[in-house]
Amino acid sequence: MKKPTAILLLNCPDRQGIITDVTKFITDNRGNIVYLDQYVDTENGVLFMRIEWELEGFLIPREKIKEYIQTMFSQRYDMQFNIFFNDTKPRMAIFVSKMSHCLYDLLARYKSGEWDVEIPCIISNHEDLRYVADQFGIPYYVWSIKADHSNKAEVERAEMDLLRRERVSFIVLARYMQIISEEMIAAYPHHIINIHHSFLPAFVGARPYHQAYERGVKIIGATSHYVTTELDAGPIIEQDVVRISHKDTPESLMLKGKDLEKIVLSRAVSKHIARKILTYKNRTIIFG
Amino acid sequence: MKKPTAILLLNCPDRQGIITDVTKFITDNRGNIVYLDQYVDTENGVLFMRIEWELEGFLIPREKIKEYIQTMFSQRYDMQFNIFFNDTKPRMAIFVSKMSHCLYDLLARYKSGEWDVEIPCIISNHEDLRYVADQFGIPYYVWSIKADHSNKAEVERAEMDLLRRERVSFIVLARYMQIISEEMIAAYPHHIINIHHSFLPAFVGARPYHQAYERGVKIIGATSHYVTTELDAGPIIEQDVVRISHKDTPESLMLKGKDLEKIVLSRAVSKHIARKILTYKNRTIIFG
Amino acid sequence: MKKPTAILLLNCPDRQGIITDVTKFITDNRGNIVYLDQYVDTENGVLFMRIEWELEGFLIPREKIKEYIQTMFSQRYDMQFNIFFNDTKPRMAIFVSKMSHCLYDLLARYKSGEWDVEIPCIISNHEDLRYVADQFGIPYYVWSIKADHSNKAEVERAEMDLLRRERVSFIVLARYMQIISEEMIAAYPHHIINIHHSFLPAFVGARPYHQAYERGVKIIGATSHYVTTELDAGPIIEQDVVRISHKDTPESLMLKGKDLEKIVLSRAVSKHIARKILTYKNRTIIFG
Amino acid sequence: MKKPTAILLLNCPDRQGIITDVTKFITDNRGNIVYLDQYVDTENGVLFMRIEWELEGFLIPREKIKEYIQTMFSQRYDMQFNIFFNDTKPRMAIFVSKMSHCLYDLLARYKSGEWDVEIPCIISNHEDLRYVADQFGIPYYVWSIKADHSNKAEVERAEMDLLRRERVSFIVLARYMQIISEEMIAAYPHHIINIHHSFLPAFVGARPYHQAYERGVKIIGATSHYVTTELDAGPIIEQDVVRISHKDTPESLMLKGKDLEKIVLSRAVSKHIARKILTYKNRTIIFG
Repeated sequence: MKKPTAILLLNCPDRQGIITDVTKFITDNRGNIVYLDQYVDTENGVLFMRIEWELEGFLIPREKIKEYIQTMFSQRYDMQFNIFFNDTKPRMAIFVSKMSHCLYDLLARYKSGEWDVEIPCIISNHEDLRYVADQFGIPYYVWSIKADHSNKAEVERAEMDLLRRERVSFIVLARYMQIISEEMIAAYPHHIINIHHSFLPAFVGARPYHQAYERGVKIIGATSHYVTTELDAGPIIEQDVVRISHKDTPESLMLKGKDLEKIVLSRAVSKHIARKILTYKNRTIIFG
Repeated sequence: MKKPTAILLLNCPDRQGIITDVTKFITDNRGNIVYLDQYVDTENGVLFMRIEWELEGFLIPREKIKEYIQTMFSQRYDMQFNIFFNDTKPRMAIFVSKMSHCLYDLLARYKSGEWDVEIPCIISNHEDLRYVADQFGIPYYVWSIKADHSNKAEVERAEMDLLRRERVSFIVLARYMQIISEEMIAAYPHHIINIHHSFLPAFVGARPYHQAYERGVKIIGATSHYVTTELDAGPIIEQDVVRISHKDTPESLMLKGKDLEKIVLSRAVSKHIARKILTYKNRTIIFG
Repeated sequence: MKKPTAILLLNCPDRQGIITDVTKFITDNRGNIVYLDQYVDTENGVLFMRIEWELEGFLIPREKIKEYIQTMFSQRYDMQFNIFFNDTKPRMAIFVSKMSHCLYDLLARYKSGEWDVEIPCIISNHEDLRYVADQFGIPYYVWSIKADHSNKAEVERAEMDLLRRERVSFIVLARYMQIISEEMIAAYPHHIINIHHSFLPAFVGARPYHQAYERGVKIIGATSHYVTTELDAGPIIEQDVVRISHKDTPESLMLKGKDLEKIVLSRAVSKHIARKILTYKNRTIIFG
Repeated sequence: MKKPTAILLLNCPDRQGIITDVTKFITDNRGNIVYLDQYVDTENGVLFMRIEWELEGFLIPREKIKEYIQTMFSQRYDMQFNIFFNDTKPRMAIFVSKMSHCLYDLLARYKSGEWDVEIPCIISNHEDLRYVADQFGIPYYVWSIKADHSNKAEVERAEMDLLRRERVSFIVLARYMQIISEEMIAAYPHHIINIHHSFLPAFVGARPYHQAYERGVKIIGATSHYVTTELDAGPIIEQDVVRISHKDTPESLMLKGKDLEKIVLSRAVSKHIARKILTYKNRTIIFG
């Protein structure tokens, strides 16, 4: 059994003494620090920090920790922060369309216990992947979006009702082929993870493998990123590539790409679940 | 000592019997085939082929080979082809500006005998790298291009005179920071190799490392390609990448990128010297 | 619908005219060649070839093709060959122990139709993964091997009976932690694919991630290979690697490695199913 | 101009308060910290830290810093440490045999100012690369080691005299094909960097490319490491790999490998020059 811990993710203008102050606060209150990593963006003069300590014996009750940090550090250091507890599992909704490779990869990790996560629902605009949800016993919801998008707002309202009802904390777009509206993005800021099947910023938008084939590149990639209102332009979490050759066709690119997509998406989800990602100015800081 | 060989590079509409006909022609004339590779682009229905055979004992004199192939195959199969001889060294001109890493990499390979190539001249718009040319005893020519480009046409005429005089067969832009005019490109079609310091088509144009930093990518790349009139859009010969992290600054990206650039450029030059590259519809076919 | 094709895989001492003869034989009998690739191992003087042609309109009935090739080429060219038909699906048995990541990856591809393969059975020495087999509706057989291996011969006999009954054409060891006996290897020569969780030949044998951690490597790998009687020493089909750092523990290596293992294993299985692999002198020739 | 800094590299048993104490010590004495990174090996309970601060305004004179740290922390925390100053250039000796690629790569970086290093001498057992040393104006010393090694001890004594005279702080073996004696290793503990032309621990010893070819691997690598008395078994600093295929011969592996070797060696040398490497239990901790 894992021991319960608190995880503090913060960023603030870099000043001498912050690390000392924060670690002293935890130690003085009998918290045993089990992880500490920080990074200073010297260009922007910003400190980023992730610190994790055991709650057992910690003098401040867990429901008061946020308040204490707020009071003691937040104003003084102009600090933005989040507190998480390792025994509170994030609740992840998965959006899919017709392709199963990313969905299977996510569910296989979930089922095997690789991730500390709950998956209360899978949402789609197509019936195609219901059998996968059924295999894993996860509720599958379908709202079809009409070709003219006339019911899109209505569909998203229904989806957001479900997300609220299921207390979803973050969303994974596992090759979901629809554009997410600004409303939904605003409701989950930097909490919607997409996988784009190209090495962004190359080949934004539709049919990136065909674009890659046309351009004659020698390497293709996949990119997972947080969704923002600008298409395929949110903070990048993870990328990876595979070498190709003139012998590849758009079809073989798609096959090679599918392996990239699922691994790159799952790496991003892993980091998100472990609360190892901070975002700043459309870039991600990812702790090791 | 290498035995003299002829190298035939061809492409034509794919039809049954071409490979048979060509290999039979060589074998019947007592040529010993030492390399044969072909590739069919089924999308476009085009056959690409590279075949190399020993000239010793070959019944057709080397100066007649081109004529024979022209007569026997070219019209019949609507074939485009080139004949090279492995004992005719290509003559390579190098264009540089101020950074030495690619130039050193090229010259170190040349000097150590890794490449069957002559380097009659290095051309620059700056004096900065004359010392490198001097170290290797290669003539270094400087023509300064004015900031307003008012003398650019004149400079290029002088450069092209030199290239002709030195019977240069191809040009390598080793981090040469000027745009090549259409005239010079037309004079060396698919014979000017550039290194672009990004993973094309991402980050076309100026300051790609700064662009990469701003975008927050997790991998950077370098791309060698033949120069065409559209900037950074010619047929890609080789690409490679290296993983980066949020800790990297534009400066550290530049340092990591320099290693990529020189290796990616030299791989492309190697393939070009070995006559292993065919181009078709802005893509390269690269034989192994 | 795919058109039915025949696939000929051959190797023989390299002599002029073989490619011509074989392609002429097919063309003369009205076979439309859709794939041709060959490779000459100049070190050993051996030609390897893969040729695929459409059966529709082919003058020789499919059940006679083998005989014809035997008669016309086999002796004359000292040729070893195999004939496959693309509409005959290979039948693949999967052996597993307790870890599900490779099994899920294989079954997800199978279920989504990525592979032209049948999977009649999954075999294990543990009950642990029965639920995965159940999810996909594939029969799951358990024979427990005792710690002292006293019943191993008996178990393998039972397994081989099943394999024969199910007309299994090849076996995939998806992190099966038992050593296969010589008898079973002999029954499926170069038809048992294993995944080893290291970059072979580094870290042969047990606990390679711990070995890698101890040695302090900066990159770890995974290797898929055909099983031979020498442990972890059979012909390598595919390898891949991932960069690690001093921050990695044996546990994090295992997690990173699992992603490598499943992708590397599935790439090997893909190539095997597509009949793109030839073996020679403990090395594989893999057609593109 | 870079501002002068002090760099403290330390390791000690991990205890609460060390980071606080050390940073407080620097800050209290008006040192401006410009770099701080630490890593805790939880397996062994050891803290590793690299901290760099500006000397301008620092209250303790640079020649006293070592003494202060010794007094204040070393015993108390059972700390091992080293102090460097960024304006004291390390002095690097290069050992070579006959291949020039690594030597050129090192010298090109040196000459272009990429590295803060002095290179007072190049040492070889062959005359072959004197011309390279001459190109860069660096003294080149040759001591031939007889085939029977009868004069090896004598040669090493002469080499060590030179190294002492030239106040060499670390040694780079740039494809030097001789085994270094225990005496010389003892004189430069973890200060001799070797490049081995394989992905260690695969293919220890002689002719690794031939070993790789024989084994039929699909990826080859190169490894830079500190030299210890056990052959090719010292702490690994950096590794990298390149994908190969069945088409590669031992010769083409050598060519591809040379590019790996020089980049992997130079990355290691960069890290060493920047004092970013700590070693512990035959493993390296490499700060970013």
